[in-house]
Amino acid sequence: MIKPRTPPGVMELLPRDQIAFQRMLDTIRRVYESFGFLPVETPVFELSEVLLTKTGGETERQVYFVQSTGALAQGAEGLPEMALRFDLTVPLARYVAEHEHALAFPFRRYQIQRVYRGERAQRGRFREFYQCDIDVIGKDTLGVRHDAEMPAVIHRVFSELGVGAFTIQLNNRKLLRGFFAGLGIADGERQALVLREIDKLDKRGAEAVAATLQAEPFALAADVVAKIMDFVQFRSRTQAEALAKLDQLAGEGSDADLAAGIAELREVLRMLQAQGVPESDYALNFAIARGLDYYTGTVYETILDDHPQVGSVCSGGRYDNLAGSYTKSKLPGVGISIGATRLFWQLREAGIIAAAESSVQVLVALMADEGVADALDIARRLRAAGLATEVQLEPRKLQKQFQYADKAGIPFVALQGEDEAARGVVRIKDLRTQEQFDVPREDPAPAIVARLQAEVTR
Amino acid sequence: MIKPRTPPGVMELLPRDQIAFQRMLDTIRRVYESFGFLPVETPVFELSEVLLTKTGGETERQVYFVQSTGALAQGAEGLPEMALRFDLTVPLARYVAEHEHALAFPFRRYQIQRVYRGERAQRGRFREFYQCDIDVIGKDTLGVRHDAEMPAVIHRVFSELGVGAFTIQLNNRKLLRGFFAGLGIADGERQALVLREIDKLDKRGAEAVAATLQAEPFALAADVVAKIMDFVQFRSRTQAEALAKLDQLAGEGSDADLAAGIAELREVLRMLQAQGVPESDYALNFAIARGLDYYTGTVYETILDDHPQVGSVCSGGRYDNLAGSYTKSKLPGVGISIGATRLFWQLREAGIIAAAESSVQVLVALMADEGVADALDIARRLRAAGLATEVQLEPRKLQKQFQYADKAGIPFVALQGEDEAARGVVRIKDLRTQEQFDVPREDPAPAIVARLQAEVTR
Repeated sequence: MIKPRTPPGVMELLPRDQIAFQRMLDTIRRVYESFGFLPVETPVFELSEVLLTKTGGETERQVYFVQSTGALAQGAEGLPEMALRFDLTVPLARYVAEHEHALAFPFRRYQIQRVYRGERAQRGRFREFYQCDIDVIGKDTLGVRHDAEMPAVIHRVFSELGVGAFTIQLNNRKLLRGFFAGLGIADGERQALVLREIDKLDKRGAEAVAATLQAEPFALAADVVAKIMDFVQFRSRTQAEALAKLDQLAGEGSDADLAAGIAELREVLRMLQAQGVPESDYALNFAIARGLDYYTGTVYETILDDHPQVGSVCSGGRYDNLAGSYTKSKLPGVGISIGATRLFWQLREAGIIAAAESSVQVLVALMADEGVADALDIARRLRAAGLATEVQLEPRKLQKQFQYADKAGIPFVALQGEDEAARGVVRIKDLRTQEQFDVPREDPAPAIVARLQAEVTR
Repeated sequence: MIKPRTPPGVMELLPRDQIAFQRMLDTIRRVYESFGFLPVETPVFELSEVLLTKTGGETERQVYFVQSTGALAQGAEGLPEMALRFDLTVPLARYVAEHEHALAFPFRRYQIQRVYRGERAQRGRFREFYQCDIDVIGKDTLGVRHDAEMPAVIHRVFSELGVGAFTIQLNNRKLLRGFFAGLGIADGERQALVLREIDKLDKRGAEAVAATLQAEPFALAADVVAKIMDFVQFRSRTQAEALAKLDQLAGEGSDADLAAGIAELREVLRMLQAQGVPESDYALNFAIARGLDYYTGTVYETILDDHPQVGSVCSGGRYDNLAGSYTKSKLPGVGISIGATRLFWQLREAGIIAAAESSVQVLVALMADEGVADALDIARRLRAAGLATEVQLEPRKLQKQFQYADKAGIPFVALQGEDEAARGVVRIKDLRTQEQFDVPREDPAPAIVARLQAEVTR
């Protein structure tokens, strides 16, 4: 006998949790599709040579390799032929480069699949997890308006997920670069080191970070550090505040990068308003830098206002060239990613989401063995009206059947006893309210459908 | 520069094909849920020790192993720690055994995920493919009525997929066993060898198979072979024919297995009728045996009447004990599986399904740069009504925008020129009919929604 268990670092759910998780994925997909993104799926494994074009990164050290039984038996030398994808961006780059001539640009794709990383095993860290990505890829150029569409999508997703108040935080890498250049910190590597310290603001506090920036090896002057601290701690609360801040920055410096970053952020803010995103739900935050060697323009992070400890639940940004490893075409893009597995796990830990009602909406109970044909026919009529219906196929104490439905989270039980059969009706019990009502035997669905719809719109 | 390409043996689709494939999976899922099956997802990899409890099977020789970068660097000895699942049945067994005390039995689950097999690379053979499974697992016992629900689900799935006429073929392993025992072929292994020859009926023809069975090593008497050939070539065309055949078999033999198999098939047939499955869509076929060492009662295969060369598109059956490797509990079950990747590929090859319309329903065109705020607002109103809407964010020749929508399979283009703006309307063009009509600027969705709904019900 082998002990049944999953490998460490995976999130496997019981059915009611799986239903809740599935609803989260369905919501994300529906919103992505509503904004006109097209579905793409790529294989779980890629050729190692194709996947690992860059070496040495943290992510690459976490790669899982895949070997066939045959290759393993031969003890083949060198890297195994295939590896599991560690994100959806490298597969997207490979996909776009491979199918370039068959795609229309700007190419708008969504992809909701699992990725694999050999993370250290610990609570809340996953080795297998869903990413839900959208990207818009241009050929040669891609206007900044596409950067402005991303926060509108994020806004719709998190509004529909119903996870409380959230703030989409915006920044721009060009603006960052220009700002630091204006303070005499022009070197990219030096900027990166300063930004790394700023990233510790939440953990260490402003004073400690300021002290570090004044000390070796940074040795920045006190007034420079004061300007930096002022800059990175700014958060706009309204559209007007955001625009005023950009005006102020434009007045203080003449750096070309700074000007470009300001212009891009202005356009993003203007388009957010045009798209009806409430100004309370987004903010400028100059402390956001994201993957320093990858993003080149707008960057995004999204925080849950009442649960800042969860960290960013949706991040992304603008990049200059998606697929330089695979094609000579220049493919600039902008995208965002939701790590759905971690998000679900954390929301559940925080008590924000609970196990869902069952995906089964009606249980047709069985009172006596000879009633099974009737029960099956009632179920057929309910299903035809779109109701997910389970039939009790073998007789069992009625009380047990109700207990089962209650525990499983099935809201309605339908039953037809002798009395109901004589009157040509089916009795429906709503287990949540304990209400009972009769529906016509030949047309049992409408009353249940109406109740469920009333709940959705309530 | 690395040549962008997928590993051999995977099905990667361009967006319009992916949309068609996604619709297939969505339909299967919707039907599975409508019958009250609950979603389960398991990790793509399992511990090798857990996955490979039996050794030597064909499937086990096709396993892909997974190794972390660290384990690979250490050159760890023995089997790698993890392996990719090769079906959804072993993970189900592990899942049910692991979570046994948290589940309600009979446990009804559906699972739609990819599985991995190191198949020989050739056209139409896949190393990564979707399986769409349902199973009902009982604790200690599970009534035969659950066997009768499977064909009802199959019937609904293939009706909704719209792939033409199909036949669900039914058989029963007990009936087979009893029938052969009645002919003096009582030994299980010998039965298996005979059934293997019968499996070649379609390829070799009846005469050749009959000749083989009369020759060594079978050396069956001519009258025995005649009875076998008569038996395995029977196909019922109606419910009455099926029941009459079972009556005839019951009259001819007294074997206990034969009687049990006949009784089970009778109940399945009776329940099929109760569930409203048309008798033209199922048939008895005694030549069907399926995985000889696994199934123990009812077995199913489904063929497309106009495309028999595709083979069975949905198969399964009853088994005595799901998880004997992991638990002492006896867990009988019944289930079916649709190999969706192969099915989609074959239906596309056969011209039965084509690339779908885009998942995008409306393109809001942009006639001049200053119109973008208006375009975004129109899109917002369309999305609020559930229409998947893409916005042309940067001005471009109108003709190009129409060409793009047409090529992408987007049915509607919305545009607002000066004239429309003055009149407070948006012009909608249906690219499939070339019809144009105006809708109110503030409420542009209803007319489009109505058109789409009319098409669905048409």
